[in-house]
Amino acid sequence: MRGGFVGVDWGTSSFRLWVMRRDGAVLGESHGPEGMAHCAETGFAPVLARHLAQVQAPDDLPILICGMAGARQGWAEAPYADLPAPVSALACRALRLPPELVQGLGGHRDIRILPGLARRDPAHPDVMRGEETQLLGLAGPGHQGLVCMPGTHCKWAVLQGGAVMSFHSAMTGELFDLLARHSILRHTMPDKGGSVDPGSPAFLRALDRALPDPAQAVAGLFGIRAGHLLGFADPSDSRAHLSGLLIGADVGLALRGDAASRGRVTLIGQPGPGPLYAAALARAGARVNHVDAETASRCGLLAAALEIWSFR
Amino acid sequence: MRGGFVGVDWGTSSFRLWVMRRDGAVLGESHGPEGMAHCAETGFAPVLARHLAQVQAPDDLPILICGMAGARQGWAEAPYADLPAPVSALACRALRLPPELVQGLGGHRDIRILPGLARRDPAHPDVMRGEETQLLGLAGPGHQGLVCMPGTHCKWAVLQGGAVMSFHSAMTGELFDLLARHSILRHTMPDKGGSVDPGSPAFLRALDRALPDPAQAVAGLFGIRAGHLLGFADPSDSRAHLSGLLIGADVGLALRGDAASRGRVTLIGQPGPGPLYAAALARAGARVNHVDAETASRCGLLAAALEIWSFR
Repeated sequence: MRGGFVGVDWGTSSFRLWVMRRDGAVLGESHGPEGMAHCAETGFAPVLARHLAQVQAPDDLPILICGMAGARQGWAEAPYADLPAPVSALACRALRLPPELVQGLGGHRDIRILPGLARRDPAHPDVMRGEETQLLGLAGPGHQGLVCMPGTHCKWAVLQGGAVMSFHSAMTGELFDLLARHSILRHTMPDKGGSVDPGSPAFLRALDRALPDPAQAVAGLFGIRAGHLLGFADPSDSRAHLSGLLIGADVGLALRGDAASRGRVTLIGQPGPGPLYAAALARAGARVNHVDAETASRCGLLAAALEIWSFR
Repeated sequence: MRGGFVGVDWGTSSFRLWVMRRDGAVLGESHGPEGMAHCAETGFAPVLARHLAQVQAPDDLPILICGMAGARQGWAEAPYADLPAPVSALACRALRLPPELVQGLGGHRDIRILPGLARRDPAHPDVMRGEETQLLGLAGPGHQGLVCMPGTHCKWAVLQGGAVMSFHSAMTGELFDLLARHSILRHTMPDKGGSVDPGSPAFLRALDRALPDPAQAVAGLFGIRAGHLLGFADPSDSRAHLSGLLIGADVGLALRGDAASRGRVTLIGQPGPGPLYAAALARAGARVNHVDAETASRCGLLAAALEIWSFR
């Protein structure tokens, strides 16, 4: 890598591309909705080519991709790396795409996809794709402690000495969506599209119930409906109530299982769930170190690119 | 009530009618799929008239209805009775339908709808409609202890001296359905329609994980997907795994909250979830007293009818 490289965060439902210099400066960027789900039907190479043209990226820049493009149902499967996973393990396991897959992208272009991470514990199996690059982005050699990455499937990782030691996924975001849109609770939610205010009393009340006793959160779900029928609850509070129960249970359980780093949590937040998790962590008494998710992805891609293309 | 009465269990998606003598003998019965959801569009009286004709019920028999027909969106709202609720409280709160609602059903026919039960605790609000009649059916004056009524929303009630003292609802059945059909876990479930075998190792393993630590069950959901991706799990086990996690959490939490009657639980079971809850309760070390749900409904309707029409 002389002048720089192109980094791509290719998720299930989003695409983000940056042209970066080796010092991390961003020379161009392009975002779009063409995630893996979309490209599995239309093809990956044309989407990438379109975004490269958009930023007028030079033909000889190598490209490093993270995320769902490397899943089995993605562009090409980049097999999972195992725990514990230091930065160097991820970078050197990157999959270089064969020429037949990169047609239309400029001859022998060097395009690689970073692997996801697997926790191969038969009792607690888990996988991530994309979040490992965010971890890589914040993991200086000395970084350690609990990291929270909210999303459809919230990931909680434990870092030590710059390596990922363990992690688990909670289906919190997907559960919220299923319950709010498809369950009996939908009848209590007239304002379908509204986002939840992390400071609202209904959200905080639900957190206070779920944080100290995560099991009670699931048992409390039907109460959202019943409280509505009995006139105890304002329908405009229902989404905040549901969100507080689910996020409170998620955070309460993660903190319970992590006595070592209790009190210090790195939150890789994105708009939407980020501020809600920040409120829950603060409510639980944690000191939160905030990191922006997009910045973390970009820094992770840079760290891996430096490993791959400028051998030290 | 001289010769007898007609009892109806009118649920959200089912209709069951019995012609009964005062000694409980069943002289005729008729079942159908015309639950509240169906009748809210087509009307309730015609459905009832059709089933009455089916069993050739005499025109002068009074009719007692329990279940969702008495909900706000049902035939006529029978307001909830409050806790603690002895049998007599339910019977005397039955709502008699006004003449304008019973046209086409034989003049001044005496038709009543039993109320549901409400737990008016602002911190733990809850409601039931239909299950209170099953409780009534098994509640001799001396009946006490924990009662489990599995279903879309599993109800757990605490009885004392023949009265319902408390209860709560768990959305276990609905959560199973949402997760199996609409979540990312659906990709691990090729055999969509199969029922879960309560003796299968995958179900029992999941119970063993969730029963002692209900909070872990929700955290373990994503593991169904990850175990599949990593080759640890057989897809044909996925439904059993999911069912075991959710039912295990439900049962574990209910038993945890009920130290008083631990060890003895009455299970009002129906085909489908009944045997799964029986297995979970046994796995948790409870001694289970089995009662058939349909029998309990019929006995409850009879007990209430005797209160209403043959004043002692």
